[in-house]
Amino acid sequence: MAQNIYDNPEFFTGYSQLARSVHGLEGAPEWPSIRALLPDLREKRVVDLGCGFGWFARWAREHGAACVLGLDVSENMIARAKASTNDDDIRYAIADLEKIELPEASFDFAYSSLALHYIEDFARLVRSVHRSLVPGACFIFSIEHPIYMAPTQPGWSVGNDGRRTWPVNRYAVEGPRRTDWFVKGVLKQHRTIGTTLNTLIDAGFLVRHVEEWAPTAEQLAAQPDLADEVERPMMLIVSAQR
Amino acid sequence: MAQNIYDNPEFFTGYSQLARSVHGLEGAPEWPSIRALLPDLREKRVVDLGCGFGWFARWAREHGAACVLGLDVSENMIARAKASTNDDDIRYAIADLEKIELPEASFDFAYSSLALHYIEDFARLVRSVHRSLVPGACFIFSIEHPIYMAPTQPGWSVGNDGRRTWPVNRYAVEGPRRTDWFVKGVLKQHRTIGTTLNTLIDAGFLVRHVEEWAPTAEQLAAQPDLADEVERPMMLIVSAQR
Repeated sequence: MAQNIYDNPEFFTGYSQLARSVHGLEGAPEWPSIRALLPDLREKRVVDLGCGFGWFARWAREHGAACVLGLDVSENMIARAKASTNDDDIRYAIADLEKIELPEASFDFAYSSLALHYIEDFARLVRSVHRSLVPGACFIFSIEHPIYMAPTQPGWSVGNDGRRTWPVNRYAVEGPRRTDWFVKGVLKQHRTIGTTLNTLIDAGFLVRHVEEWAPTAEQLAAQPDLADEVERPMMLIVSAQR
Repeated sequence: MAQNIYDNPEFFTGYSQLARSVHGLEGAPEWPSIRALLPDLREKRVVDLGCGFGWFARWAREHGAACVLGLDVSENMIARAKASTNDDDIRYAIADLEKIELPEASFDFAYSSLALHYIEDFARLVRSVHRSLVPGACFIFSIEHPIYMAPTQPGWSVGNDGRRTWPVNRYAVEGPRRTDWFVKGVLKQHRTIGTTLNTLIDAGFLVRHVEEWAPTAEQLAAQPDLADEVERPMMLIVSAQR
């Protein structure tokens, strides 16, 4: 089973206080970039892999999606998502993305926000997503960027020139990474960009867009702490098409 | 005009002593990975962008290519390539890749090894390569990896755990980077992986394979100094198809 850190009470309390948890999509600085990639969702059947509190599921329905299936391994998340929703065309379910088999040719759009870097068997999941989509359908997801995940000791240093640096190592060594985030030893799965993209291509997807997210000048002016993201990317956004 | 550092005598002397200059393709550790991606070259018309001493041009002909056009900005390189070749179906020419317009639908395969990170207007060149290929033809190239190129102060540090780290910063700031390599201030152009791939996609290419090159276990055993490449990638290899 996939790690279910979101049902750790200490983690859940911390996570629930993030801007993206309190304010939803507008609290996530990468949302404008993802939104710009989204297809027209009107009449689309949508699946959201790692739906969390259901912010995107509700947004999709507000923007015309026919129905949304929101899947998450966390009982806490699904419970809050259900409590926040009053819409018969959104269905939330607890699901282990390491094992789930999605119904074939049943969705017109697949979405995932910052969930797939927890998944060990990415290739299996990608093949299942591919089968679940109709031809021409898009799969758009964000994950933590491998530059962010690779280091044995993630954290900033300061160079001789006074500029901060991010200590990349073990980039080519794929597999588990444990870092402290609200609690000790949160487990994530490091993969290179090459592996992520080749896995999609091997499953039959076309790669449509790859974005190593960084803030715009306007975002930097409004939120100076986003300057870190200029130095090294924390998120990778990919748009693929069946 | 593109920087022509290869005609700087000091640089040329240093570059000429690299394993890849002395031993050709077999002296380049990434060659087995590139070779595995190559299409069958028999009867193919090939263009090599930044052909250097012509090692690949000769290899392509030995493997059945109908003809090869090798282009390079460096007079030194082209002179040595010509002196090393006795084959009427290989043509070498001095060309500025920043400005060249390739003939339309004239090639069945385009190749480039560690040259395109010198190019400022990558999008212009990619569009020209796309037009120059017949439908279905591949474009395979290697460039320096943006993780390698991004830092303001490229060079290894040692973390608290005794493991070396590569100091990534300014990753999202694309544009010129000057580093010392045989001579002071060699000029290269940093682009994110996202930009490189999106430029190909926007020009009409399909992305077929993306490889952030790292040595195999066998290569590491034979050449322990390649261990650096496990910590952070120095090269990016891309296969695209018109």
